[in-house]
Amino acid sequence: MYNFNYYTPTKVVFGKNTEDQCGGLVKEQGCKKVLIHYGSGSVRRSGLLDKVKASLDDAEVDYIELGGAVPNPRLSLVYEGIELAKKEGVDFILAVGGGSVIDSAKAIGYGVANEGDVWDFYDRKRQAAGCLPIGVVLTIAATGSEMSNSSVITKEEGWVKRGYSSDYGRPRFAIMNPELTMTLPDYQTACGCTDILMHTMERYFTNGGNMEITDSIAEGLMRTVIENARILVRDPKNYDARAEVMWAGSLSHNGLTGCGAVVGGDFASHALEHEIGGIYDVAHGAGLAAIWGSWARYVYKDCLPRFEKFAMNVMQVDPEGTADDVALRGIEAMEDFYREIKMPTSIHELGIDPGDDELKLMAHKCSIGCKGSKGSAKVLHEEDMYKIYKAAL
Amino acid sequence: MYNFNYYTPTKVVFGKNTEDQCGGLVKEQGCKKVLIHYGSGSVRRSGLLDKVKASLDDAEVDYIELGGAVPNPRLSLVYEGIELAKKEGVDFILAVGGGSVIDSAKAIGYGVANEGDVWDFYDRKRQAAGCLPIGVVLTIAATGSEMSNSSVITKEEGWVKRGYSSDYGRPRFAIMNPELTMTLPDYQTACGCTDILMHTMERYFTNGGNMEITDSIAEGLMRTVIENARILVRDPKNYDARAEVMWAGSLSHNGLTGCGAVVGGDFASHALEHEIGGIYDVAHGAGLAAIWGSWARYVYKDCLPRFEKFAMNVMQVDPEGTADDVALRGIEAMEDFYREIKMPTSIHELGIDPGDDELKLMAHKCSIGCKGSKGSAKVLHEEDMYKIYKAAL
Repeated sequence: MYNFNYYTPTKVVFGKNTEDQCGGLVKEQGCKKVLIHYGSGSVRRSGLLDKVKASLDDAEVDYIELGGAVPNPRLSLVYEGIELAKKEGVDFILAVGGGSVIDSAKAIGYGVANEGDVWDFYDRKRQAAGCLPIGVVLTIAATGSEMSNSSVITKEEGWVKRGYSSDYGRPRFAIMNPELTMTLPDYQTACGCTDILMHTMERYFTNGGNMEITDSIAEGLMRTVIENARILVRDPKNYDARAEVMWAGSLSHNGLTGCGAVVGGDFASHALEHEIGGIYDVAHGAGLAAIWGSWARYVYKDCLPRFEKFAMNVMQVDPEGTADDVALRGIEAMEDFYREIKMPTSIHELGIDPGDDELKLMAHKCSIGCKGSKGSAKVLHEEDMYKIYKAAL
Repeated sequence: MYNFNYYTPTKVVFGKNTEDQCGGLVKEQGCKKVLIHYGSGSVRRSGLLDKVKASLDDAEVDYIELGGAVPNPRLSLVYEGIELAKKEGVDFILAVGGGSVIDSAKAIGYGVANEGDVWDFYDRKRQAAGCLPIGVVLTIAATGSEMSNSSVITKEEGWVKRGYSSDYGRPRFAIMNPELTMTLPDYQTACGCTDILMHTMERYFTNGGNMEITDSIAEGLMRTVIENARILVRDPKNYDARAEVMWAGSLSHNGLTGCGAVVGGDFASHALEHEIGGIYDVAHGAGLAAIWGSWARYVYKDCLPRFEKFAMNVMQVDPEGTADDVALRGIEAMEDFYREIKMPTSIHELGIDPGDDELKLMAHKCSIGCKGSKGSAKVLHEEDMYKIYKAAL
């Protein structure tokens, strides 16, 4: 069992109509001028933006707006946001949307609070010394960015997708109304569930320290997400299922499911997906589902006890046979679940057809992005990454 | 499913030798003069106090000391601490000890940060508007006070024991080194495990909203504590078992195990024990174990689905028979566990012999303390409380 730090200062306000509290929550932070950051405009069409503004008006908090954040959020918009926030004297950023909007808001927050090029942080050249305070009104359960310390940004030049983690970026509050996620397309809901599962799996499949209590939380969380993702396929307006998935999304990536395990987990699946997502702009969750089975089969022998435990306690497969049998049965059950919620289990099913050169390029970029190697279940080098991509085609 | 708030800003620093970080952690809070608060002097004898002081010295943080906090911490020492802290210009309180020391530190913190009599908060006459920042070096896994918003103080005049909860009192950081709990007497270890279980049970046995993910976390936590409490009976120096119990203690009472359930849970067992503890000064965990079976048998029919679920998912009893059979089997299994870790399951086993007048007085005081009624599994009035005490003799 390893030493660990756990720090989740985000105030969660969860449930129906909680978006009406955002003005008061900003005021509680002592802030006076908000940059409302959002995405494609669906928050405008749904009326959510008006509700948020009404709440800010009620609390007598001033605001400006910046829309346009896209999935795999872009550095160019981050630069625009930084400039705008500085010019307008903004002292708080309110992200209204999903992970892309929140990640973009965090990047803007780092850019405002620190001198120099914000990309330096994502490029691992230096560490941020602060971040403008961030609040969230969450509309998609997926990335867990509403409580996490991480943010992922894509630099258009070279389509490089990189993450940066710092406790300064953890949101001050997160408003989570499960009803806001009900209008999501089924595909996005399934992508979100995949991402949530992956955040816990990537802390679970490690070699080294583990804690029983952390394992039991992680296993319970995964079972809950799988069960409720299935419910949402046939009943997307089910409030309780939406709520289970939404809260799981936050717990999955706020640090809780990694306490006592090896520091940093094994985020190889995420790293591998980032290179697909950086080039092809596929939905993040779908990219993760497409790559996971290939990664799992490549590494499971090096992390056999955990894969066996996962198979039995999460996928609840028949425990007969060797540890190998059980582990493989668990991987298959997980892929069956992906298919059930209409997620791809191969790269081709993403609707893309990368050639061998593209796979090699992705493996190369991935290995650079993670300083040459990646993983705890099994340490991966460039050639391993290439083989995993190849087997995932 | 109910709306909920979740707020756990405490920075947890968990593992071996983490007490060496306390100076840096105080400094990070921008504080300059610390009141080190502790209990009977065992932290002095063990050398922990010297390590804490060395860490504060290294960080160039000034400090004074106040020992003497006792189990069921007293209001008179709180007053003394408030006076001392004000006189010395203290801006941070570092609690080195278990729940009693932390609760006492919180009360001192409220007293310094607010005008008037600090007992007013515990007596539910008014709300605190702040608290001096608190840090913790934890030496007993039990109350969860290191991450919770609650504090329980005993007023000597009339031996009234009352709790007060406010987010202002949540510690800024909590240093948790499981090794520091290894020298505890077995009885104290078992009392701690009982208290931890009770904090989760009191959120679990409610009527109304619940969440699957919260239930799965609660059930996993309870199984983990039961399993590791058994290990500690025969192997008190087992680091991993100490660590499981210690982290469970924090998670059990920081709010996590109640998310989505009925607000406030059902803390009737705690309220009933507080009246025993207030008069007889018994160990809190032992008092809880003594009263729980009687409470559970009195209320289980009004909360049958939860008692049945508990019996199967936590106590893992035979699921044959009626729901009543299964529920009762679960209660019996829990009492068997208490006996296994040498906890009492009756009031007499606490070594006290309250007469009928005493039981009536406790029931009366308990019903006043909780404004006439208490409970969600079953709402209890004064006569119910008397019957539970009586059946627990």
